[in-house]
Amino acid sequence: MTDAQTTRRMANAIRALAMDAVEKANSGHPGMPMGMADVATVLFTKILKYDATDPYWIDRDRFILSAGHGSMLLYSLLHLTGSKEMTIEELKNFRQVGSRTPGHPERGHTESVETTTGPLGAGISNAVGMALAERILAAQYPTVFDHRTFALCSDGDLMEGVSQEAIAIAGHYRLSKLVFLYDDNSISIDGDTSLSDSVDQVARFKACGWNAVRVDGHDADAVEAAIKATEGSDKPTLIACKTTIGFGAPKKAGTEKAHGSPLGAEEIEGARKALGWDYPPFEIPDDLRKLWLEAGKRGQAARKEWEKRFDALDDAVRSDLERRLHADLPDEFATAMAEHKAKLLAEPKEIATRKAGEAALTVVKATLPELVSGSADLTPSNNTLTKNMKVITPTDFGGDFMHWGVREHGMAGAVNGLAIHGGIFPVGSTFLVFSDYCRPALRLAALMKIRIVHVFTHDSIGVGEDGPTHQPVEHLAALRAIPNLNVFRPCDAIETTEAWEIAAASKQRPSVFALTRQNLPQARTDASQNLTAKGAYEIAAADGPAEVSLFASGSEVSLALEAKKALDAAGVKTRVVSVPCFELFFDQPGAYRAEVIGTAPVKIAVEAAIRQGWDAIVGSDGGFVGMSSFGESGPYKAVYEKFGVTADAVAALAREMRSTAA
Amino acid sequence: MTDAQTTRRMANAIRALAMDAVEKANSGHPGMPMGMADVATVLFTKILKYDATDPYWIDRDRFILSAGHGSMLLYSLLHLTGSKEMTIEELKNFRQVGSRTPGHPERGHTESVETTTGPLGAGISNAVGMALAERILAAQYPTVFDHRTFALCSDGDLMEGVSQEAIAIAGHYRLSKLVFLYDDNSISIDGDTSLSDSVDQVARFKACGWNAVRVDGHDADAVEAAIKATEGSDKPTLIACKTTIGFGAPKKAGTEKAHGSPLGAEEIEGARKALGWDYPPFEIPDDLRKLWLEAGKRGQAARKEWEKRFDALDDAVRSDLERRLHADLPDEFATAMAEHKAKLLAEPKEIATRKAGEAALTVVKATLPELVSGSADLTPSNNTLTKNMKVITPTDFGGDFMHWGVREHGMAGAVNGLAIHGGIFPVGSTFLVFSDYCRPALRLAALMKIRIVHVFTHDSIGVGEDGPTHQPVEHLAALRAIPNLNVFRPCDAIETTEAWEIAAASKQRPSVFALTRQNLPQARTDASQNLTAKGAYEIAAADGPAEVSLFASGSEVSLALEAKKALDAAGVKTRVVSVPCFELFFDQPGAYRAEVIGTAPVKIAVEAAIRQGWDAIVGSDGGFVGMSSFGESGPYKAVYEKFGVTADAVAALAREMRSTAA
Repeated sequence: MTDAQTTRRMANAIRALAMDAVEKANSGHPGMPMGMADVATVLFTKILKYDATDPYWIDRDRFILSAGHGSMLLYSLLHLTGSKEMTIEELKNFRQVGSRTPGHPERGHTESVETTTGPLGAGISNAVGMALAERILAAQYPTVFDHRTFALCSDGDLMEGVSQEAIAIAGHYRLSKLVFLYDDNSISIDGDTSLSDSVDQVARFKACGWNAVRVDGHDADAVEAAIKATEGSDKPTLIACKTTIGFGAPKKAGTEKAHGSPLGAEEIEGARKALGWDYPPFEIPDDLRKLWLEAGKRGQAARKEWEKRFDALDDAVRSDLERRLHADLPDEFATAMAEHKAKLLAEPKEIATRKAGEAALTVVKATLPELVSGSADLTPSNNTLTKNMKVITPTDFGGDFMHWGVREHGMAGAVNGLAIHGGIFPVGSTFLVFSDYCRPALRLAALMKIRIVHVFTHDSIGVGEDGPTHQPVEHLAALRAIPNLNVFRPCDAIETTEAWEIAAASKQRPSVFALTRQNLPQARTDASQNLTAKGAYEIAAADGPAEVSLFASGSEVSLALEAKKALDAAGVKTRVVSVPCFELFFDQPGAYRAEVIGTAPVKIAVEAAIRQGWDAIVGSDGGFVGMSSFGESGPYKAVYEKFGVTADAVAALAREMRSTAA
Repeated sequence: MTDAQTTRRMANAIRALAMDAVEKANSGHPGMPMGMADVATVLFTKILKYDATDPYWIDRDRFILSAGHGSMLLYSLLHLTGSKEMTIEELKNFRQVGSRTPGHPERGHTESVETTTGPLGAGISNAVGMALAERILAAQYPTVFDHRTFALCSDGDLMEGVSQEAIAIAGHYRLSKLVFLYDDNSISIDGDTSLSDSVDQVARFKACGWNAVRVDGHDADAVEAAIKATEGSDKPTLIACKTTIGFGAPKKAGTEKAHGSPLGAEEIEGARKALGWDYPPFEIPDDLRKLWLEAGKRGQAARKEWEKRFDALDDAVRSDLERRLHADLPDEFATAMAEHKAKLLAEPKEIATRKAGEAALTVVKATLPELVSGSADLTPSNNTLTKNMKVITPTDFGGDFMHWGVREHGMAGAVNGLAIHGGIFPVGSTFLVFSDYCRPALRLAALMKIRIVHVFTHDSIGVGEDGPTHQPVEHLAALRAIPNLNVFRPCDAIETTEAWEIAAASKQRPSVFALTRQNLPQARTDASQNLTAKGAYEIAAADGPAEVSLFASGSEVSLALEAKKALDAAGVKTRVVSVPCFELFFDQPGAYRAEVIGTAPVKIAVEAAIRQGWDAIVGSDGGFVGMSSFGESGPYKAVYEKFGVTADAVAALAREMRSTAA
């Protein structure tokens, strides 16, 4: 049997498992696994550096299934190459509750799944981040990091806008160890891609600084040659693999009917015949099983060589790298942050929280070499390029700040990839209003439970003159809606620093910061405890049993404190609760929550944003001073005045509600 | 004086107004208006078909300032060409509360502003929709529509991912009357674009099916020739205009310092000298004023010719077109919808609301020729291609369904453009989870108060096997957070039809539908009144004073009704409130809201999504049956079971709360 024939038979094992699992689940996508089986077989048996017995070896080549709907391709590969968790039973339980084989691959849920994919474009933008991580780490640890990143993507991945951002970033930074294997099957859900697409992808990628070639995706030798030709390239490479979706299925191959539903018994029987596959469902002949298991160990020698290099590292260097890979913090971190807070308390200043964030980030960076910051072309506004950072360039990855360009979604996807790779703590930044562009990636970060931070500045109508297009009003609520995401809106430099402490230590939960453009007084006078970690806390007590409780976040805390002064002066006993993080507050025990919410007859929330979410704290009969519409262009104080978000308005509402309650 | 010298002087009027207004506001972006003044002057004095005395002439050429931060370019042009509203006082009030000159251009707020821009990429995707609208309308009314669409865009516009989606759509559909004037100034906020970008835009556009040329943006003759060369083209055209940002400013020109802040008195004085502009701030010499006003009337003859053609239309055709342009509904609409509802009541079926939506849409389409539907490559899942629609193709615009490709954001931007153009009622569709990709455009639709619909199907964990990447849990809350957006989650075929009635009549508010994948029983037994219009209403009364009120939306209404049965049987008097639209409910008078919320001691909300927002109805002490995390892959009933979103769980919680309350 020729090499090509063996490869085809090994690929047919994938095809059979994919169509059988989808059939058994009565749900799923057989077409892509069957179409890309040859390419994947070449990659996993001849190219990819990995060791199935050590799936998290840090210098493995990465394989990202960006076209996540083809999950059975990945699950079959994991099963065949010997992933311990990916038993044949799991394949039989494809798409069932509790299985390791969900409809789309989920990182953390299934061993060896590098990233959670399905929403198209996500995987390739993660891949860019992972390839970038390798370059950055290789600059820091040249003997330890030297791997490649392969992403399998579909027509749909390349139609999504985020693909352009990802491709442009990879091309600009010349991520030469990144390869996209494009399943060029000319079929989308609606039918032939010619229904909606005329883009020449090879020309497009070349325009963006990539190598790009076309190859027959069913010609194993040609695929192998094309991938091998990318070694030593000075650019990332697109390999457009012309394939037939559902390859082997007699009637449905090459049509959208093979894409997203079971083939059906008759078609599967026909495919078995056409492929010369005589085995019953879920059965793999011993010779193929052996070949696949051997393939799964191909990288063992390389891994052993690598271990020697890793062990040869200077002890301190190695243990710091290990710390980084575990996302642990060094001991100096807590000390440095404590010192910074002490300094803030000693010299309180009226500054914007974006500036306070810059100061805190400078301290964080000083103790965390793994921190990589960046901005989507708002560097001077986001204040995320601190003095102790160095800009990363296409010719020097020995830095820690990325100019992402005006590419919020691509940045967020790559930030996820940086974190997923391991060894890096990534920080992105843009305006809060543009968090909308990042949402698909933020959601996946929350689902994957990874440690990332996005610094979203210009967080309210306080943006001022740029007007309603740039003034977020619904974004805090919309972000708070995402499960497992800490949304911090600190009220001053102390809370901002506390938020950084929490975010850096938050291994399982991503964080976003909403920071002001405008100056704020320092509200906190004590920093002995990280109160932000409670999510909400009383920042100013009433003089006796409170008649009025004011709840506020961020810039409105100082406004609430001002209102308290006026109310206290008028004899209305008022307390103020700062609410820097809803998610953490709702994590607290019920008794603490009840204590913080308190029993004052008048409860008012103050936030220069919409009310949604605040009812959980002040009740549906509580008062609210904030926004109920989009904002307006004007100097920020005039805008606050125009929408009645003022200390006077808070005090007036409190008095009114008190007289009604009385 | 040569023609070129005159053009330069006219352009200098824009430059002077821009730098003076920004200086007076002490805020804004002088660089782009100064850089693109020559190009804009050529366009407005020699190319664009418009009549400043009739700014909303429907067959005018459209000019979209996608780089909305350069708003002073547009405001200056409007002032100079004679827009009545755009007085010199307005220019002096640039970026002030209450002015017509907000920081970024706002459609509806300022006469002749075609669309709201600022968030980069938005304008060019709108432009694609507007150019498409022209083609569709020209196919229907060949003597009435024949105009072009010009969009001025920046480096940032072309870096945003949505640009790729927009460009690919325009290229595929060969929107030959669309021209992008690209301000190729090589400067972004962070500095030189070479910091983050290496894309060859001309090559990229060519790969996407465009003509693309480069030209010196300060050479008026060359610009004019390049634009004129696009006439009669069979493709859209990119004209990359090489310009100097802040052209004329002696020290800041060509640098990021000219981009986003006032130039300062000294630099402005230098610029006046360099440009040979001897006039005080906000003063325009009479000869230039005259030339500009003449330019503003260039299109009058064409408009008068057009009026003849318009008047020559068949009376019925003309009056129907006028109706369409006013977004009014024909009389048949109400009748057809009423008949449809009567049929639904007569033959109740258990169907998914996406299928019910298809049936309703078929009726809507039958009476509204202006309706243009489409899907982002989920046509067979979204059910938005009805039998009475015809697919639009690059060679035949005489249809009413768009295959948008896997381009949710581009679709949403183009849908906005279709609506903005006038004469079309656009409908987009994708999965609810991908509404995240559309958010920046949805927000702008809400801000612009335009009539659009997005049909978002697969609206909960009811998605089932596709798993958490495809199961929306936070999206309802996140969409409800956007001001001025009706989020409909109908519970059955009747509510779905009612939602369509409201959406079609909603001239000032966009609508989105959240529809199920899974079948639902028909809950309503009466359709004499459009109850969805109230936002929430009692769908099943208690037998006597209610002890338990259940509030639910969409698929959970039938689940609440099932729970009511069990509770009633156990002697617990229970009522059920259907809540198809929060936004409309909160619009109701307080007395109605109080009545619907009622006084039952036990209040429980049921929605297979997160709780956020429901406290406003059930109170923070109310019960909730829904989600507090992401979902899981599995058959949908098993997933509902796994997360405890069942009628049994609702009944159990009600009993538990009742015993506590008692």
